[in-house]
Amino acid sequence: MHITILGGGGFLGRKLAARLAREGQLDGRRVTALTLFDLNTPVPPAEAPFPIRTLAGDVTDRAALAEAIPPQTEVIFHLAAVVSAAAEADFDLGMKVNLHGTLAVLDTCRTLPKPPRVVFTSSVASFGGGQGAMVPDDGRQVPANSYGAQKAIGELLLQDASRRGFLDAVCIRLPTVMVRPGRPNKAASSFVSAVLREPLLGLPATCPVEEDFAVWICSPRRAVEWFLYAATMDTAPLGLDRGINPPGASVSVAQMLAALPQEARRLVSFVPDTTIQAIVSGWPAAFTAERARRLGFSEQEPLTEVVRAFIEDDLEATRAERATG
Amino acid sequence: MHITILGGGGFLGRKLAARLAREGQLDGRRVTALTLFDLNTPVPPAEAPFPIRTLAGDVTDRAALAEAIPPQTEVIFHLAAVVSAAAEADFDLGMKVNLHGTLAVLDTCRTLPKPPRVVFTSSVASFGGGQGAMVPDDGRQVPANSYGAQKAIGELLLQDASRRGFLDAVCIRLPTVMVRPGRPNKAASSFVSAVLREPLLGLPATCPVEEDFAVWICSPRRAVEWFLYAATMDTAPLGLDRGINPPGASVSVAQMLAALPQEARRLVSFVPDTTIQAIVSGWPAAFTAERARRLGFSEQEPLTEVVRAFIEDDLEATRAERATG
Repeated sequence: MHITILGGGGFLGRKLAARLAREGQLDGRRVTALTLFDLNTPVPPAEAPFPIRTLAGDVTDRAALAEAIPPQTEVIFHLAAVVSAAAEADFDLGMKVNLHGTLAVLDTCRTLPKPPRVVFTSSVASFGGGQGAMVPDDGRQVPANSYGAQKAIGELLLQDASRRGFLDAVCIRLPTVMVRPGRPNKAASSFVSAVLREPLLGLPATCPVEEDFAVWICSPRRAVEWFLYAATMDTAPLGLDRGINPPGASVSVAQMLAALPQEARRLVSFVPDTTIQAIVSGWPAAFTAERARRLGFSEQEPLTEVVRAFIEDDLEATRAERATG
Repeated sequence: MHITILGGGGFLGRKLAARLAREGQLDGRRVTALTLFDLNTPVPPAEAPFPIRTLAGDVTDRAALAEAIPPQTEVIFHLAAVVSAAAEADFDLGMKVNLHGTLAVLDTCRTLPKPPRVVFTSSVASFGGGQGAMVPDDGRQVPANSYGAQKAIGELLLQDASRRGFLDAVCIRLPTVMVRPGRPNKAASSFVSAVLREPLLGLPATCPVEEDFAVWICSPRRAVEWFLYAATMDTAPLGLDRGINPPGASVSVAQMLAALPQEARRLVSFVPDTTIQAIVSGWPAAFTAERARRLGFSEQEPLTEVVRAFIEDDLEATRAERATG
């Protein structure tokens, strides 16, 4: 089975590649080749039981995509994206990568001899509703940011392309992924990971919202599980509707902090930030996600497990990166 | 007030232009210039109290659009589209005009000194649901055809562009418009107009569905009323959501036929067509349209009035066209 990860150099792309390398198979079938494609040449997993190609290129460049997606490709993970803060700051860049990039992926798929499975990362950012919302499976996407609009458009494109038989898409609307490694940044959602990551590194963190503020989250491990499931699931039960609200978890800041060791928890202070509050208060805090459960998508693990996995998977690398940075 | 109609040579574009020419004003402000733009040079209304430019060009051609939308343009009616049957038969053509055309309109609007009002014709074809459906105002668009997908994408693009202040859009999801002039064609919806138009011309017509089959319709006159209202309405109450389900009417074939003079009604015979039934049975037959009513969009007039208006506006021209065709 030939697999391509577009955005293979990103946070989730690297974790997905590492998982594939570790398992060597997907749903019982041997992985025979993996291509990692990103703007900068992705770093491949250290060891893998199959050949890995790493390619640098622009996702809107059809020649580069043709190389990244050879004719025998069966599964494409399309994770290449300009993230929400960047797409809001630079409209043209977001449109280029998030819209025209997806159009280029669609065009490339049409040249393959067999319609490939395409696993596309859409986002909870394509919904509004706010703290009080419980988004149903047929909830309408009225995006409040360009990233969310571009992701909702990507879903419509891949949905129609699936109906026409150009490809066979599953679009996963990812919750806010935590705990992210790296540093605090200017993204409004930065605090969701920072209030756990920074204290675990022994560093102080500030929380801009009240402790009863709730977020719809998933862990990096869970996101990868969903990607792998979406890559081989039977898509017939999806019908026309290729968008999935996966079973993440609605967690409050208080619940997040309770998952930290007590000494770490003391490093978090509450410093209200009305600018951040204004943005994040529009995000829906919960989804029913009944359809995804029926379709076989696995449940988000508890927060204590999320924290333990971060310590196991990412803490040392994050600490080392800070020391050299 | 400078106005541009993209798709100004089409059925609704011509009716809109004629109405503007007749009134000379929009919401109390004088129309000072009108540009009609279409693939073939549009035929302007016979008389108008303002200058009319007619331009031929491709809606994806940015240079042509720049000419069609001069800097002082205040209102753009974006009706240019490849219709549903054509967009289904030729995916690339539909994508070009319906998606890339709308992207080109967006880009052109960004070059104007003041964000123009853009009235965009989206479609009931962007919804599914079928005969039993009563689509609520927050109903989700899961299109079952490429035209509907492209229209839903256009809405998302114009919605985000409105939020960013590039333009100020109102997207009207038009019902099936009837009575259309012209001839019966291969569109699945052809019969909706044909069962009224053909008998009024003294010609036989066949109806491929049962007489209790219901359709969500509007008249050409009503569509033009909605366009004009959308062109000057206060968009603040719309918030992020620029999509409007206007107050059309859900009418059965039996109700349609009852609006015909008795001698005309006898010209309609029922000839079931399972292919057409399979397509049209997926169309939602009714919408709540509460939000549009609250926002001030006017009600669809009764069917007898629709028939009377067709006779007044279009019957002679249709008859003449048939005689020479």
